[in-house]
Amino acid sequence: MSLPPPAEAGIALEDVDTPALILEMEPFERNLRRMTDSLKESGVALRPHAKSHKCPEIALRQLALGAVGVCCQKVTEAEALVAGGVGDVLIANQVVGERKLRRLVELAQRARLAVCADHPVNVAALAAAATAAGARLDVLVELDVGAGRCGAPPAAAAELAQQVAASPGLRFAGLQAYQGAAQHLRSEAERAAAIDRAVAAVQETTALLAAHGIECERVTGGGTGTYLLEAASGVYTEVQPGSYALMDADYGRNEPAPAATLAFEQSLFVLATVMSRPAPRRAVLDAGLKALATDSGLPLVDALEGVRYVKATDEHGVLEIDPSAAAPMLGDKLRLVPGHCDPTVNLHDWIVCVRGGRVEALWRVAARGAVF
Amino acid sequence: MSLPPPAEAGIALEDVDTPALILEMEPFERNLRRMTDSLKESGVALRPHAKSHKCPEIALRQLALGAVGVCCQKVTEAEALVAGGVGDVLIANQVVGERKLRRLVELAQRARLAVCADHPVNVAALAAAATAAGARLDVLVELDVGAGRCGAPPAAAAELAQQVAASPGLRFAGLQAYQGAAQHLRSEAERAAAIDRAVAAVQETTALLAAHGIECERVTGGGTGTYLLEAASGVYTEVQPGSYALMDADYGRNEPAPAATLAFEQSLFVLATVMSRPAPRRAVLDAGLKALATDSGLPLVDALEGVRYVKATDEHGVLEIDPSAAAPMLGDKLRLVPGHCDPTVNLHDWIVCVRGGRVEALWRVAARGAVF
Repeated sequence: MSLPPPAEAGIALEDVDTPALILEMEPFERNLRRMTDSLKESGVALRPHAKSHKCPEIALRQLALGAVGVCCQKVTEAEALVAGGVGDVLIANQVVGERKLRRLVELAQRARLAVCADHPVNVAALAAAATAAGARLDVLVELDVGAGRCGAPPAAAAELAQQVAASPGLRFAGLQAYQGAAQHLRSEAERAAAIDRAVAAVQETTALLAAHGIECERVTGGGTGTYLLEAASGVYTEVQPGSYALMDADYGRNEPAPAATLAFEQSLFVLATVMSRPAPRRAVLDAGLKALATDSGLPLVDALEGVRYVKATDEHGVLEIDPSAAAPMLGDKLRLVPGHCDPTVNLHDWIVCVRGGRVEALWRVAARGAVF
Repeated sequence: MSLPPPAEAGIALEDVDTPALILEMEPFERNLRRMTDSLKESGVALRPHAKSHKCPEIALRQLALGAVGVCCQKVTEAEALVAGGVGDVLIANQVVGERKLRRLVELAQRARLAVCADHPVNVAALAAAATAAGARLDVLVELDVGAGRCGAPPAAAAELAQQVAASPGLRFAGLQAYQGAAQHLRSEAERAAAIDRAVAAVQETTALLAAHGIECERVTGGGTGTYLLEAASGVYTEVQPGSYALMDADYGRNEPAPAATLAFEQSLFVLATVMSRPAPRRAVLDAGLKALATDSGLPLVDALEGVRYVKATDEHGVLEIDPSAAAPMLGDKLRLVPGHCDPTVNLHDWIVCVRGGRVEALWRVAARGAVF
């Protein structure tokens, strides 16, 4: 059984069933254009991260505005994007395990695909899978540029690049150098310092590669919080922002970059209904943990002063209402700004596209749940 | 595009693609039998909550062991359960909004269905929807028995019961009296005190109903943490535990009830692969926020001393390894105990049923994402 969408094209926003993921088309389209415009002078390529939206319809619009391809994190995600018409995908992550590798090399024969590696055993497994399938895989070596998660330090990364270059079935395609921990540092100064260190690690690695006669055609990284810093660095050739298209409450807490024209707008909301009014200062919404990710904080109530979302349980969200506030009534529909867009989108099958208060289209979150 | 399952029946556990939701069949079956056995003497009916598992295959096994029906929280969840063969569903929650009400009364003509209400405006809307469809709906009034979320206090609940009884298309079917906040109080003494207060609120309400000549045929509530207290109360006629079939790390932190034979076992795990080994004391798993809910704490690493899951990001889980521990190697597959089973199950399309280290079956999480 497939789940029904919460709306049909043409109905009014207030008639959409809830909870529902709402995309306000006007700020969304402005965000896409602002991103393209902000990179025009830099000569740096844009490869938006599709792990945020998991939606081929959005990826195709990013490509139409000049993106060279998209990133994703998982093989099943790449499969959904390719099935939706995307021809160039970087899996900006390691792929470990036999079943995954078989799918990866099969997909590499149907689309322009690249993958990352940070361990010699994984490079050997990638080479074995590619040669067994008669495929050729582009491999980027992941460098740890300060986030302390995956990735190799410069010397080990240079050795891995040599191993990739020498492996049948593989081609060394550059460095993955994403500083994830820097994206939500609140001040621009902190973010700039973190990206300075990332750039230094990249430079150290490319110098080692050059000493071994290995050309590094691509250095890719950067997210919505820092991509202008990578783009201005002179060493990154490509940036990977994802959240900019949708935005969330956590990105909203960042001090914006100095160029105010680059501020991205909230375009993603969760629409929820007041399903209980048990007390004068308490209302309960029908959207809880299964409709909103809370890892980066609770959602914000949009455009309603003095009403706060204070507790999420599985299917409920509790609102606290100030005595002076206009209290929402039973059946009222409110818009919430999710704390973190990526895992919130992953909870929904449909994106309800809204323009001027009407549903314009329903887009499937085709890679929703594509975790392996 | 429909997502492929991470396994086929017959393969070994270590060949399952990851991250994957694993159900160990032996402890799962023992949990189901223990629940049935623990209620045998009480005469109280068992109506397991299906919001935990969202899986008709599990619901049918609960019914086969004597459950009178199941609970769920959403209309779309009820639709998925009925489509999967479940004939008796209590939506233990309010249903507010026109689209939802149309679906509700349509479903009520195909299955034995009941719904809750805690507000006179909602009772009127339920009556209007039922009469418009020529349907007849069983309505339970939700009593706030101390959880401070939804539900009316005793006097208002008694008035709502009168309103339901007087409404065309509706039938007053009893009281919903679930104390959700009591389920995770750590000591049995605290839980017993909370349920004593819930029982007193129920008694106050049934006395008011009796004074108005309204019979209360059903009092339903109780979860895995407290259901034996409700069952022993003399006022509850039905209990609604859900998590007992699967269990999670948060329930594992409860001090068990005195009757040790009633302890439920962990049967649900998330299988994850070590995808990066960037440092001697750090490993990275391929299961993060999109494969594991973290609202009730991070997952526990099963059966591996000195290895802790310390950080979840969208697609990664960081493990910290004690110097004395046997460090997992790249490609190793580990079992994780989710912090909270309900929202973790909701992230996956498939339950991989495992017995003796082999995949026995794949069950669809048919109501995954059924949030409206």
